[in-house]
Amino acid sequence: MDCGNSCESCEAAALCRGSGEFLDAAERSVLADAARASRGFILDMVAATGTGHLGMALGCGEIGAVLFGKFLRCDGTAPGWVDRDRFVLSAGHGSAFLYTWLHLSGYAINLEDLRNFRSGSTAAKSHPEFYRSLGVECTTGPLGQGVANAVGMALSQQLFAGKLGADARQMHCRTVCLAGDGCLQEGVALEAIALAGLWELGNLILVYDDNGITLDGPSSATNVGRMDALFRSCNWKVQRVDGHDLDELAEALLRARALPGGQPQVIIAKTVAGKGVAAIEGSPAAHGNGLRTEELRRVREELGLGPEPFAVPNAVAEYFSLLSRRRRWERERWQENFAEVLERHPDAMELLFPKPFDGERWAASLGPLGGEKRPTRFFGGTLLRELAKKLPQLVSIGADLFSSTGTAIGDGSYYAAENTEGRNVQCGAREHAMGAIANGLAYDGMFRPIVSTFLVFSDYLRPAIRLGAMAKLPILYVFTHDSIAVGEDGPTHHPVEMLPSLRAIPHLNILRPADGEETAGALAAALDGKEGPAAVILTRQGVPSLDSIPVQRRRNGVHRGAYVAKLETEPLELILLASGSELHRALASAEGIPSCRVVSVPCLEAFNRQPQAYRDEVLPPHCRKRLAIEAAGPMSWWCHVEPENVISVDDFGECLSGELLLEQRGFSVATIRERMRELSGRSL
Amino acid sequence: MDCGNSCESCEAAALCRGSGEFLDAAERSVLADAARASRGFILDMVAATGTGHLGMALGCGEIGAVLFGKFLRCDGTAPGWVDRDRFVLSAGHGSAFLYTWLHLSGYAINLEDLRNFRSGSTAAKSHPEFYRSLGVECTTGPLGQGVANAVGMALSQQLFAGKLGADARQMHCRTVCLAGDGCLQEGVALEAIALAGLWELGNLILVYDDNGITLDGPSSATNVGRMDALFRSCNWKVQRVDGHDLDELAEALLRARALPGGQPQVIIAKTVAGKGVAAIEGSPAAHGNGLRTEELRRVREELGLGPEPFAVPNAVAEYFSLLSRRRRWERERWQENFAEVLERHPDAMELLFPKPFDGERWAASLGPLGGEKRPTRFFGGTLLRELAKKLPQLVSIGADLFSSTGTAIGDGSYYAAENTEGRNVQCGAREHAMGAIANGLAYDGMFRPIVSTFLVFSDYLRPAIRLGAMAKLPILYVFTHDSIAVGEDGPTHHPVEMLPSLRAIPHLNILRPADGEETAGALAAALDGKEGPAAVILTRQGVPSLDSIPVQRRRNGVHRGAYVAKLETEPLELILLASGSELHRALASAEGIPSCRVVSVPCLEAFNRQPQAYRDEVLPPHCRKRLAIEAAGPMSWWCHVEPENVISVDDFGECLSGELLLEQRGFSVATIRERMRELSGRSL
Repeated sequence: MDCGNSCESCEAAALCRGSGEFLDAAERSVLADAARASRGFILDMVAATGTGHLGMALGCGEIGAVLFGKFLRCDGTAPGWVDRDRFVLSAGHGSAFLYTWLHLSGYAINLEDLRNFRSGSTAAKSHPEFYRSLGVECTTGPLGQGVANAVGMALSQQLFAGKLGADARQMHCRTVCLAGDGCLQEGVALEAIALAGLWELGNLILVYDDNGITLDGPSSATNVGRMDALFRSCNWKVQRVDGHDLDELAEALLRARALPGGQPQVIIAKTVAGKGVAAIEGSPAAHGNGLRTEELRRVREELGLGPEPFAVPNAVAEYFSLLSRRRRWERERWQENFAEVLERHPDAMELLFPKPFDGERWAASLGPLGGEKRPTRFFGGTLLRELAKKLPQLVSIGADLFSSTGTAIGDGSYYAAENTEGRNVQCGAREHAMGAIANGLAYDGMFRPIVSTFLVFSDYLRPAIRLGAMAKLPILYVFTHDSIAVGEDGPTHHPVEMLPSLRAIPHLNILRPADGEETAGALAAALDGKEGPAAVILTRQGVPSLDSIPVQRRRNGVHRGAYVAKLETEPLELILLASGSELHRALASAEGIPSCRVVSVPCLEAFNRQPQAYRDEVLPPHCRKRLAIEAAGPMSWWCHVEPENVISVDDFGECLSGELLLEQRGFSVATIRERMRELSGRSL
Repeated sequence: MDCGNSCESCEAAALCRGSGEFLDAAERSVLADAARASRGFILDMVAATGTGHLGMALGCGEIGAVLFGKFLRCDGTAPGWVDRDRFVLSAGHGSAFLYTWLHLSGYAINLEDLRNFRSGSTAAKSHPEFYRSLGVECTTGPLGQGVANAVGMALSQQLFAGKLGADARQMHCRTVCLAGDGCLQEGVALEAIALAGLWELGNLILVYDDNGITLDGPSSATNVGRMDALFRSCNWKVQRVDGHDLDELAEALLRARALPGGQPQVIIAKTVAGKGVAAIEGSPAAHGNGLRTEELRRVREELGLGPEPFAVPNAVAEYFSLLSRRRRWERERWQENFAEVLERHPDAMELLFPKPFDGERWAASLGPLGGEKRPTRFFGGTLLRELAKKLPQLVSIGADLFSSTGTAIGDGSYYAAENTEGRNVQCGAREHAMGAIANGLAYDGMFRPIVSTFLVFSDYLRPAIRLGAMAKLPILYVFTHDSIAVGEDGPTHHPVEMLPSLRAIPHLNILRPADGEETAGALAAALDGKEGPAAVILTRQGVPSLDSIPVQRRRNGVHRGAYVAKLETEPLELILLASGSELHRALASAEGIPSCRVVSVPCLEAFNRQPQAYRDEVLPPHCRKRLAIEAAGPMSWWCHVEPENVISVDDFGECLSGELLLEQRGFSVATIRERMRELSGRSL
């Protein structure tokens, strides 16, 4: 397998290779036993819980044996090792496969976890849930996401290697993704496959479990059937193997590792779903059904396993025990060496051991951001470039709108195979892959992605945003062009329902600042968070600076979610609440009305988390005459304001200038005053 | 061009062909003039409004000339003609292109519209908005959607042709889609391209405007660059042409029409963005910037156009006038003939002239649906199959989950090139394309799509749902597995934020029935609607029948959005509101409490539209002690209930049995009773 150039890839292959040419007889025999044992585990797990997906988990027995028993560079006792191979099970319904092999490979998943599969176990969930210390690299299940997550992890490794200069040869890790038909039919996967080819991610290996069936029948009914040509068209190298032939699998995987980089690699492994259980082999029933007890006993016998559940043949146990020791030894040897390497690369060091970031302190250190009328996206971009100087882990990922969102950082150059220093990752018009690749970067933990597009297109990546929020990934979304104020581009480009819909996602903070100072506060709050994503929502149109409010008040106010922007001078009668650009309209409407308070609400979620005392201070409970003003769907405001007292946008926009449209929809100062008069029951 | 077999395709080509071999000299000259004139129009439109996108619109001058001046089978005076070619501008930002050519081709877009481009014109919007009578076949702008819409329209034509038997040869129409790099990078387009190849949509022609740039720079930075191979891998026929060579374009298009079916066709047309304006040709600046006045004057001169805006050379005007007369004559001749054909095919006739459907009457005609505990998805499937017998226009489109959603109709068979009678369209795991293809079917107007998947995956097709709602398309979404009650599949498969997020979309009704009878009412209400989509949300788990409530009350109650499910017997103190499966918990909790009313709320939107009197009757305003119960995010209930009084799910689910999880999250009768006691301030 050596390419003759003593390159790092070949070294890595040599490191991984056993004693024989691909497999020697003993190895072949023990890996076959391991595959059989894995099938027993999987059947036992599904039997113990009564439900679960057998088809893929059983069908990939040999793939699991070769991956976990031979190929993967990993150490179950050090699941966070930076030079480990990342293994992503994109076909997340096959989670029994993952837990079985992690267990056999010495990860912290014990037999008790497997026995409690799918039913309250902290480790062995129905679909893999991100838990680094167990070896679960990401949350999968919704189809296609894992493929794009894997592309993000491979990108993370390339970006990291870029910091090591010539020492990049010290890194041997690969990202290996196992995916089935369902995953590869999804647009998010197709987008990510195109990007992996474009970026020449030679460190990415995709194993396609081509088992010929999907839930609703033969995959031929939904596949065009030329997956090899499709991958080649996207600059991938393709190998085809019998997915039950250990030698073919081992050869293909070692070749994929050894070949000098430049192209991602797919191994199309023809398998039989439900392999090992004659009754369900190759049928859609294999996807989701368990076995009855007597059937299970018979199948266990056929597999040559004892009557006891979770049986591991001695030879298999010994093999994995020895393998684990060897892997540990190799990892330790690597780490000793790498500690020295790292000394020479402070940039890389900082990625692995980032300095804590104190957002409030950073914001306090900035000069004033007032001055002429400017869009908040202008401040967003300017401040992100400042932050990027401080935070080497920031990477900006965009979908063909950098020129409009203004979110390019560093020297503005794009990442490419020949420019691994580029801190801007250009995905083209592939928002969904952008989101899922950003998740992959964030799962990997070295880089912190800034994900940007227009707010209206946040829908395109919503499934990825949801998973990022579920896994509490520290992602910063920057969504610009934030309301019908976008104007002439018309209803297809007017976000209306996006604000309430994003606010409905658990663990996601939505920050909508009103001017430059609030934007600084929003970015500080977003990046300050120990965990979990945040979305900063910015305007396309210029907004004035709120110079009547002290700078630090605006910056710090964002952290608490809401603050008093204008205090009443006479007994409080009326409160106006507003976010973003509508705050200016609220303030203008309250001008000269002594009994009216204006509250700026850049982040409803953060405000709702504040202690009751602070909330009561900002929104005194006795004052129920409240009017909320936000150019979006009204729902999220109903928690503080009577439903009829929200000036909102409850229909799609239309093709008009932003100013006219806002006026038509009730956002002119005259109309707001009219509503204030109605509400307070007297002339103001 | 004749293939020698005197097939219908060749007839169609002959029909469309002019007098010469591809183009004679006169034709070539006038089409070149037309292309130049179109550039003048586009520059004038953008100049009049000050903003707009020039790059694609100018770059496609020759493509427009050949399409609208020669190739398209259409008649501007009959934009709804069933055998017209459908033209879809997927690159919707180039709308000036579309309006210019529709205007020149005799559609009802006048000069005044063009002068008011992007600024309040009822016709010439920034991005095309569906308006059949103007020739705008669908709403585009959000990238990739138009490609999938076109696939849906081509499918619609195939399904319709399937009803005509041997008379299908009378149909000559094609769907022609013009798309750029942005569209073809999107996952939704890639999914749709795979499906078009799979379904062998030989009536689909995609023109790829390969202009080498995207917003953020050269397209080589984001394209893998082997689009021809990618299309071939998906079973498409590929031609490459110079997009500014009229003869090459004409030959490729006529060949695409003439070749006997079986494969969709792509014509990759190399163009220069901004063609005709030297200052911006081929640069990203061509995408979105207008010209200053003096520059415009110079460019108009270079183009050989007079100083007047919107100038049409005489030869061009005469050519299009003659062409329009010929097209009209051809269309009339076809229609006379087809009237007879249609007599022989009552099925096809009914698609074109559907009988009105009275949902309430249909629901009233059903026998009782009570009996044992069953999932509402069971009733959904059963009733859809009944409805499908009455409504030949129903087509069920799914994403590899028919076996779980239960939404297959007719004989259960899947549509395929060799089974055009199949009323179930299987998209594989391609939810986004499913949604956008359904939009295409609905735009085309002959078929009415039922779109189904799990509720949690509605996020995958959300951009398409939004556009369907914006265009008020009569689509029925059926989303099953509707809450954390899904149980063991875990948080990735638990919809939480989907209900409030879908309710935030304007023009979309969300119906969540509680049992079989309410499901009948929900389907009746959903299909009854004259326009606009509806989503029916169904359970995975079994629910009892609400036998204590009269059948017709449950069925009709859905139409009004909410109704009293249990009336208090003593002065009203407390109201429980609930939807779907949680209604059973509400009723059980209210059991034996005489001062407590229970309100079933299957559709919040419909209820909120009811006259105040009805709303006050169901929810008497004096009773503010209200508790809402729904296993989803709480937001949408705040319009009727104090924010703290919603028993909801405000975090992601977890991997537990549905029953346990519901109990943990506060949905047990004991916990609900506790909340009722707290609220009423006394023991109950």
